[in-house]
Amino acid sequence: MSRPGILYPKMTVIGCGLIGGSIIRAAREHGVVGQVTVADASEAHRARVIELGIADHVTGDIGEAVKDADLVVIATPVLSTAEVAAALAPHLKPGATLTDVGSTKANVVEAFKALDLSKVFVIPGHPIAGTEQSGPDAGFAELFENRWTILTPAESDDEAYAAAVARLSTFWRAFGAQVELMDDKHHDLVLAVVSHLPHLIAYTIVGSAADLENVTESEVIKFSASGFRDFTRIAASDPTMWRDIFVANKDAVLEMLGRFTEDLQAMSRAIRWGDADTLHAHFTRTRAIRRGIVAAGQESAEPNFGRDRGKH
Amino acid sequence: MSRPGILYPKMTVIGCGLIGGSIIRAAREHGVVGQVTVADASEAHRARVIELGIADHVTGDIGEAVKDADLVVIATPVLSTAEVAAALAPHLKPGATLTDVGSTKANVVEAFKALDLSKVFVIPGHPIAGTEQSGPDAGFAELFENRWTILTPAESDDEAYAAAVARLSTFWRAFGAQVELMDDKHHDLVLAVVSHLPHLIAYTIVGSAADLENVTESEVIKFSASGFRDFTRIAASDPTMWRDIFVANKDAVLEMLGRFTEDLQAMSRAIRWGDADTLHAHFTRTRAIRRGIVAAGQESAEPNFGRDRGKH
Repeated sequence: MSRPGILYPKMTVIGCGLIGGSIIRAAREHGVVGQVTVADASEAHRARVIELGIADHVTGDIGEAVKDADLVVIATPVLSTAEVAAALAPHLKPGATLTDVGSTKANVVEAFKALDLSKVFVIPGHPIAGTEQSGPDAGFAELFENRWTILTPAESDDEAYAAAVARLSTFWRAFGAQVELMDDKHHDLVLAVVSHLPHLIAYTIVGSAADLENVTESEVIKFSASGFRDFTRIAASDPTMWRDIFVANKDAVLEMLGRFTEDLQAMSRAIRWGDADTLHAHFTRTRAIRRGIVAAGQESAEPNFGRDRGKH
Repeated sequence: MSRPGILYPKMTVIGCGLIGGSIIRAAREHGVVGQVTVADASEAHRARVIELGIADHVTGDIGEAVKDADLVVIATPVLSTAEVAAALAPHLKPGATLTDVGSTKANVVEAFKALDLSKVFVIPGHPIAGTEQSGPDAGFAELFENRWTILTPAESDDEAYAAAVARLSTFWRAFGAQVELMDDKHHDLVLAVVSHLPHLIAYTIVGSAADLENVTESEVIKFSASGFRDFTRIAASDPTMWRDIFVANKDAVLEMLGRFTEDLQAMSRAIRWGDADTLHAHFTRTRAIRRGIVAAGQESAEPNFGRDRGKH
């Protein structure tokens, strides 16, 4: 973690939930912003932010909040981004940087394109980090450490824009995050694979298990260590956030779901016909990706890996 | 963990892999057996068992191995149980207990029914425990601590049989395991839900991800913390064991897979039509099972639960 000094004299965060609150705390701790303004639609949130003392200025007025800001971070639920962006666009200072933290990016890019944002640097973003908590108290400065933040800048030859992207990357890296630049549609496809489809599948199987007439919920809970438990953890994620993600990323999710369903049907057929060779060949092949994850050190957060694997 | 004293003066374990080797070590450590005999088809395994000094007698001859045994544990791969049982059946001592450790039970019960086992107590079993290791060196005495062992005894009014079931339950509890009695077909249905279907789905999605033309394996690995990683861990399980499980438990797995596929199609339809209410209602409902698992203390092995959940 480098300490790059003040990157943005004035930062405004719209929405002080888990992510917004964590950005504020991290930015202050690492000294990368001067003044912090929070705009939040919830009066209770605003009162709590004042009590916490993490912002220099707290307001319910979006226009007032952004007018002097060098960096504006939209950290509201992803389906409200279009509305929030429309409200703040006319008030932005020329030369400011506008970013967001939404879990889907193509819909955000579309929303921004509908507005006149020609005088600011628009750089959508997605920090891949979270906990099950929400609200102003949930944030903490370390949330982004060793996590990825994906930025989806526009294609541009403009040197000033490139400099703005570099600055925002430095901002995230100051928090201990790794930064990856990506096309917004590609981001949505990658996240559909590594996150959205796994969540959809987990939500579905947990629901299927709950509906069984001949296996009790108590049995499912008792014996869940044999594989099911990992799915229940994923399926306990915030329902509103996930509803919004599936609405916002429909096309990529349906594309991935179609491929998965085809492959699952092929496995089903192999089981029905007792095609042991096909099953074995498939089960062998999937180990390569796992080895890649372990080699990349992505598993370090799970100390009991090994003894817990392979229960059956 | 109680110390019940010697329950079986002579125990014979057929197959000294992870489970067989762990049973031997646990049984010696907790003092519930007198002499231990190992029968293993592999000469290398036999030599290693002798080196390890964990058995009193080591042989490749199944008949000789079981002839004096009070407890015989078949711990070979589940598809070889029928063959092993046929080889040892004529040599069993009247009044001995015969059990196994296979991941599926209806096929084992079928195999036993085809043999004359009228003079012994047949009590199929399934310790739900494992690691990714195999072979004589892989076993350890603590493998079964705080895990479930399911026994699937026959329906019987015979007091001597009931006593044999109670004794075998005491044997497992001495290792720190919790014991549940269950009908064999019901066992296979429960395991299809909590273990076999989750594994099939995990194997499938990891395969689907590996096949994508437009998302690289490196991207999948980099961003796997957002849900996918849990699936890769499950999909790294032993291919041979899992092939055998799907062959052995075809009917229950296909039944569960059919229900899951229907439910997944319903979710797919809700996404396609932007039916946000249906999605939200489903995502809310699945949290109840998760709460049950946390309340039952099933999550204790994962200290970083919380901060790792909900990445998106």
